[in-house]
Amino acid sequence: MQPRVHVVTLGVADIERSLDFYRGLGWGPGAVVGTEFEATAESPGGAAGQLVLEDGLLLMFYGRQDLERDAGTALSPGPGPFSLGHLVESRAAVDEALQAAVDAGGTLADAGHERPWGIYSGYFQDPDGHLWEVISNPASGPEAEG
Amino acid sequence: MQPRVHVVTLGVADIERSLDFYRGLGWGPGAVVGTEFEATAESPGGAAGQLVLEDGLLLMFYGRQDLERDAGTALSPGPGPFSLGHLVESRAAVDEALQAAVDAGGTLADAGHERPWGIYSGYFQDPDGHLWEVISNPASGPEAEG
Repeated sequence: MQPRVHVVTLGVADIERSLDFYRGLGWGPGAVVGTEFEATAESPGGAAGQLVLEDGLLLMFYGRQDLERDAGTALSPGPGPFSLGHLVESRAAVDEALQAAVDAGGTLADAGHERPWGIYSGYFQDPDGHLWEVISNPASGPEAEG
Repeated sequence: MQPRVHVVTLGVADIERSLDFYRGLGWGPGAVVGTEFEATAESPGGAAGQLVLEDGLLLMFYGRQDLERDAGTALSPGPGPFSLGHLVESRAAVDEALQAAVDAGGTLADAGHERPWGIYSGYFQDPDGHLWEVISNPASGPEAEG
């Protein structure tokens, strides 16, 4: 296997609600695909929300119970023990992104502050509780030059 | 916010065990960083495993309880309602990747098979139960040419 992630799929309660939230962040219109594949006794439904991010990474929103059926394994209701990290160029941009997430219907989990390991970051949760950390790392960003 | 994921952080029980598993997939030696930042009354510990994937995406392994403390929110023990998707070029490559994951210490959740929406895929779980779907999509891969 090449060391690569091509798709991040989030199990959600309402695909349209998820798309609306990420649209509110300015992440494009996206689309709902697969609605023609209804759930059957043998298969979960195929409807999923899809956003194409930078580098071609797909961010997908799939019904949580469909994901359980598709994967053949039980999943916790969530929020699960993971986070997605988003780097920005300054502390102010961290605070702005967290506010934008709240304005779009997300929840602030932890306001921006300095972490002992030298970053400034904060966390928000999307409408299903999926965690995002917004990070400014002065060791790797423009602030390191200043 | 730009539409981008820079980091995927998985909450884990044992950072070294996680690194060993992904090393077994051939995803590089990686490293444990931040061990100098021990947990305090005010802060979680900073130790995390880190792998640099293609396109510069960071795959991080962070103690689940440290992640909860860092994010300021309770997280389910997992496996959480999400999956990471990995595209390969053929059905045989799906089966090979699933077998490689099992050989490295993962668990097969759902063996490779055709899905109604035209892909061939299967799921494995890493040592903490985090879900990966390995996918061959003939509509977008070399098999579409054949």
